[in-house]
Amino acid sequence: MARSETQVGIVGAGPAGLMLSHLLHLHGISSIVLEARSRAYCEERVRAGVLEHTSVELLRNAGLSERLNREGLQHHGIDIGVDGIRHNISFLELTGKCVTVYGQQEVVNDLIARRFADNGDLRFECGDVTLHDIEGPQPLIRTNKNGNFDEIRCDYIAGCDGFHGISRFAVPAGALTVYERNYPFAWLGILAEASPSRDELLYMHHDRGFALYSMRSTRITRLYLQCAPNENIDSWSDDRIWNELRIRLGCTDGWLPAEGPILQKSVTGMRSFVVEPLQYGCLFLAGDAAHIVPPTGAKGMNLAFADVYYLSEALDAHYRQNSDEQLRQYSSKCLARIWKAQRFSWWMTSMLHRFHDESGFDHKRQLAELSYVTTSRAAATSLAENYVGLPLYT
Amino acid sequence: MARSETQVGIVGAGPAGLMLSHLLHLHGISSIVLEARSRAYCEERVRAGVLEHTSVELLRNAGLSERLNREGLQHHGIDIGVDGIRHNISFLELTGKCVTVYGQQEVVNDLIARRFADNGDLRFECGDVTLHDIEGPQPLIRTNKNGNFDEIRCDYIAGCDGFHGISRFAVPAGALTVYERNYPFAWLGILAEASPSRDELLYMHHDRGFALYSMRSTRITRLYLQCAPNENIDSWSDDRIWNELRIRLGCTDGWLPAEGPILQKSVTGMRSFVVEPLQYGCLFLAGDAAHIVPPTGAKGMNLAFADVYYLSEALDAHYRQNSDEQLRQYSSKCLARIWKAQRFSWWMTSMLHRFHDESGFDHKRQLAELSYVTTSRAAATSLAENYVGLPLYT
Repeated sequence: MARSETQVGIVGAGPAGLMLSHLLHLHGISSIVLEARSRAYCEERVRAGVLEHTSVELLRNAGLSERLNREGLQHHGIDIGVDGIRHNISFLELTGKCVTVYGQQEVVNDLIARRFADNGDLRFECGDVTLHDIEGPQPLIRTNKNGNFDEIRCDYIAGCDGFHGISRFAVPAGALTVYERNYPFAWLGILAEASPSRDELLYMHHDRGFALYSMRSTRITRLYLQCAPNENIDSWSDDRIWNELRIRLGCTDGWLPAEGPILQKSVTGMRSFVVEPLQYGCLFLAGDAAHIVPPTGAKGMNLAFADVYYLSEALDAHYRQNSDEQLRQYSSKCLARIWKAQRFSWWMTSMLHRFHDESGFDHKRQLAELSYVTTSRAAATSLAENYVGLPLYT
Repeated sequence: MARSETQVGIVGAGPAGLMLSHLLHLHGISSIVLEARSRAYCEERVRAGVLEHTSVELLRNAGLSERLNREGLQHHGIDIGVDGIRHNISFLELTGKCVTVYGQQEVVNDLIARRFADNGDLRFECGDVTLHDIEGPQPLIRTNKNGNFDEIRCDYIAGCDGFHGISRFAVPAGALTVYERNYPFAWLGILAEASPSRDELLYMHHDRGFALYSMRSTRITRLYLQCAPNENIDSWSDDRIWNELRIRLGCTDGWLPAEGPILQKSVTGMRSFVVEPLQYGCLFLAGDAAHIVPPTGAKGMNLAFADVYYLSEALDAHYRQNSDEQLRQYSSKCLARIWKAQRFSWWMTSMLHRFHDESGFDHKRQLAELSYVTTSRAAATSLAENYVGLPLYT
C-alpha cells in the first residue's frame, strides 16, 4: 500500500476539483486530485459551455485565461424567441457585462495542463475511492487501482465528484437535507458540424416545445429540443431532428439554423437539486456533488467555480491566519448564491418550456411573463444580471 | 312599463360602471347606469384602497381629483418584511412614480356626486336586471323594481357588475373561455380605529403566514392575516387577532402595529380569474365582471379603470369617427394589460404567502426570491413598475 500526505484531498477532476487544486496552489496549499475516469475522458467530455462574466474574471485572476481570451466567443446577450419573433436581451447594454462561450472541456484541458505544468498531483483512473474519518481531525482517502491500494492522509477533503460521485454518500444519512424538483421534460441535444448562422444564443418558446440554438465554437453548433423525460433517442433520425429544429427555431424573418453532420446525440434529464449543508466534519462538498440546476440558465459550471473560490479563500484563511471562521461559513455563503441561481434556473426553465399538463391560467401567465420580460427594461435587466452572474461577494 | 333610450347601458355602479359613465359623458356620449344595490350601500362598501399612478393620472385628467388630492395618502413605496426585517422598495426612486391610498368607496362617492352634478342618469335598487338581444344591433336591458318594469334600449351594453353580476352570464355558454386559479388560503381582514404607526404598507412574509399592514386614512388602519380558505371568523376574537398581528408584523427593531377598536372583520378568498374575450356582440365586459386578481398586488380597481378607459375611447371613436376598429380591439388590448397584472398579482401572492403543502425546494426558492427582490435594484424596479401601474398605452 502506498501512502501520501497532503493538506487537501480533492475527489474529482472536473472543473470544480481542478480549479480548487489550482486556486489552492496559488495560495501555497498542497492538494492531491483523485479522479475515477481517464485523463482523456475528462478532457473530451462535452458538457456546459457558457462562462459567466464572474467566472471569466475568476479565470483571469487565476492566470488561466490565455487560450480563453483567444478562443472564447464573447456574447453580448441572448435572443428570446416567441411566436417566431426574436427579442434581444443585451447583457452589455443592461449590465455592462458579457458572457463567454467556451466549452467546459476546454476549461478542463486548460486546468489539467496548468496543474501538470505546476507539478500538481493529479491521479486519474483511481478505482474504488472511499472516504474515512471524515468527522476529523485527520480524514483519509483510500483508492484501489487494479489492486494497488493508495491511502491519502489530509487535513480536509473536498468532494468535487459530481452528482453521481461518492463524496455526498460518505455523509451519514440524516446529516444532509435534500431539496429537489424534477421537470416533466428533458433535452434532446446534438452537436453538429455547422458554422453558427447567428452570433448569440436563441432561446425559443414554441407550442411544440422549447428549442435552444447555441454554439461551441466557430465551426460547431449545439442545439437542443425539449422532449419527453423518457424520450427514445433511437426514434430521432437526423432528418427528424433537423426537421423539428427548423419548425421550432425558424423565425418569421426567414432565419433558420445552419445544418451539418450530427456528431453526437443525447437526452439529458432536467432537475433542480440541492443538499444542505455543504460541510460535514472535514468534508466540503462543491459543485454538482451538492447541487444540480436545469441547463436553461447556463449556471452549472459557474456555480462550481463560485463554490471552490469560497472554499479556497476559506482554506487560505485557515492555513495563513489560523482562522476557521470562513470554513464555518462556507456552506451558508455558498448556499445564499446557489439558491439565487436555483431560483433563476427554475424561472428560465418555467418561462421557456411547454408544460403539457399545466392549467390554462398558468399557460396564459407564462405568455404574459414572456411578453413582459421582452418589453420591460427592468425585467430584462433582472434576467441579464443573473445570466452574467451575480457578484461573488453578496 | 317605462321605456328609456340611451347610447350605452351600463350595468353596475361600482368604480368601473361609474367611471365609464363619467368618461362617456366627457365625450358627449349618453349612458344610463343600473345598479341592484342602494346608493348608500355602494357609497359605504369598503373594498380596494390603492390607486396606481396610472389611475391617479386618469382621475386627474377626468377632473375627478379635487378631494383625492386633498385626502389621498401618497405612498412613495412599500416595505417587504422577511424574518422581522423590513426592506424598503422605493417606487419614487426606482420609477419616479408613487401610488395613492384612497379607499374605493371614496372614489365611488366622488363619482356618484359628480355624475349627479352632471345630471347623469344613475338608477339604484334596480331589481332583476336582464340583458336581451345582446348580439345586436339594438340590445335591451330590462329591470323590475318592486313590480315597476323598465326597458332601456341602447346601442351597447357595458357589463360592469362585478364577479357575481349577471352580465357575464348573459353570454351563451361556450362563447367565453375561463382561466382560473384558486389559492389554498384566504385573508382575514380588519378595519381598526387606530392611527397608522407607519407611513407605508408593510408586506410581511412570516412562517405562520403572510400579514399586511395598510391604512385607509390618517385614522383608520387596515390589516390582514393569511388564513385558511374556510376560516371560521367566529373563532377569531379581537384579542386573538391583535396577538397574531403582533407576532407576524412585529419587527426586530421593535416596531409593532398600533392597535385600536376593530370596526369590521371579514374573510376574503383568493382567486385569479379571467374570461376571454371581453366582448360578445354589443356587450362589453369590464372590471371584476371579467377578471379577478388576488389583492396582494393591489390591482383590482386599477384594472377596472384601465378597461373602461379603453372602452370609452373606443366608443368615442365609434360615435365621433364612425370607426369600430377600437371596439373590435377592445378585448385584446385590455387582455394584454390584464394578463401582465395577473402575472404580477400571482407573483406577489406566490412570493409572500406560506404554502403549507409546498415542497422543500419551492419553499427555499421562495426565500431566495425574497432575498433577491430585496437586494437587486433591477428586481425591485420590476416590482415597482408593476405596482405603480404599467402605462395605459402598451
